[in-house]
Amino acid sequence: MSDTEPSEDDINRRANEKSRKRKQARDRMLATKTIEKGLLIVHTGKGKGKSTAAFGLAIRAIGNGMKVGVVQFVKGKWQTGERGVLEKFPDQVTIRTMGEGFTWETQDRARDIAAAKAAWDVSREMIEDCRGDDPKYDLVILDELNIVLRYDYLPIEEVLEVLGGRPEGLHVVVTGRNAKEPLIELADLVTEMTMVKHPFRAGVKAQKGIEY
Amino acid sequence: MSDTEPSEDDINRRANEKSRKRKQARDRMLATKTIEKGLLIVHTGKGKGKSTAAFGLAIRAIGNGMKVGVVQFVKGKWQTGERGVLEKFPDQVTIRTMGEGFTWETQDRARDIAAAKAAWDVSREMIEDCRGDDPKYDLVILDELNIVLRYDYLPIEEVLEVLGGRPEGLHVVVTGRNAKEPLIELADLVTEMTMVKHPFRAGVKAQKGIEY
Repeated sequence: MSDTEPSEDDINRRANEKSRKRKQARDRMLATKTIEKGLLIVHTGKGKGKSTAAFGLAIRAIGNGMKVGVVQFVKGKWQTGERGVLEKFPDQVTIRTMGEGFTWETQDRARDIAAAKAAWDVSREMIEDCRGDDPKYDLVILDELNIVLRYDYLPIEEVLEVLGGRPEGLHVVVTGRNAKEPLIELADLVTEMTMVKHPFRAGVKAQKGIEY
Repeated sequence: MSDTEPSEDDINRRANEKSRKRKQARDRMLATKTIEKGLLIVHTGKGKGKSTAAFGLAIRAIGNGMKVGVVQFVKGKWQTGERGVLEKFPDQVTIRTMGEGFTWETQDRARDIAAAKAAWDVSREMIEDCRGDDPKYDLVILDELNIVLRYDYLPIEEVLEVLGGRPEGLHVVVTGRNAKEPLIELADLVTEMTMVKHPFRAGVKAQKGIEY
């Protein structure tokens, strides 16, 4: 019988055994992960989904009863649609949008720098508001902060100091392409969104409700 | 004067001119993108954010008044928190979760295959419900479909046929690591989430409200 095909039962039995061992290994691994802390999360890369995933995190946090602060360094990145949903939870969400930010429409560097500094002041304040027994936020999202850091519109040292010294339980998400290396070093969780294929290549325009 | 440092005004002027040219080039590029169609979007890769970004897309679509169908091939991927938010929009969202799916808890291949087939039947039905003048959904999310395709629990040919033949205006998002090459070929927009850094490495456990 050794040269016959394995039966479906055989295949299932082997797969289940392999799965059981994998689960054991995973349970052992997870048992070693015991530290609880607020995470510094970075979404970077040229692909889609950096802000969308941050927005998804905001909604997940809200669904878990957490309080969320959002600073938008680029205006219009989170559009009417998603802001409308967030605004259904006024007790849990604060959104601050500063200036025009770095859209393709911007052609005024001096104004951009001023907007970046104003947005950073608000960010720092939000983070400071999370100290003590009654933190104002559980999650702060600094959407597109990487872009202003990339153009050196803010001192990276100061940003690292504030993020690194954030209150213990506070989660912070930083998005935007070209994350600076020292920020990646400091972060707990870094995901790079890579563009494998984009519809522009096939002449397809951005689609409402999906891309904006 | 030629060997002096450029003034802040000079730097601003040059930056603004560069930005103006970039905007012109971008406007020209965008003008060539005229096709409107429902997109087939794939989120793959080993990093975080594949399902979270899909969830963010669902919320954005809802905020734009669109109708969303979700099939979860893996149970528990979207937790109570985010489901709670989606369920606040019962007229716009339908969520179907099939079986236990491919969690680390699963040790029954035969049951997994049955669950995959049941979830696929529901998916195909959702897509078919979008034909005609009164489509039932504008966006269908097939969360973790890639995993069951990867294990060959569904015939890839049939999946490609249904997705490729979807109604014209319907957007479909497929998530999960190890997306099959022919699915990537067929898709309009593919993003790979790459793990650069993960908190497990530092002994940090998964954090409620953020990772689940």
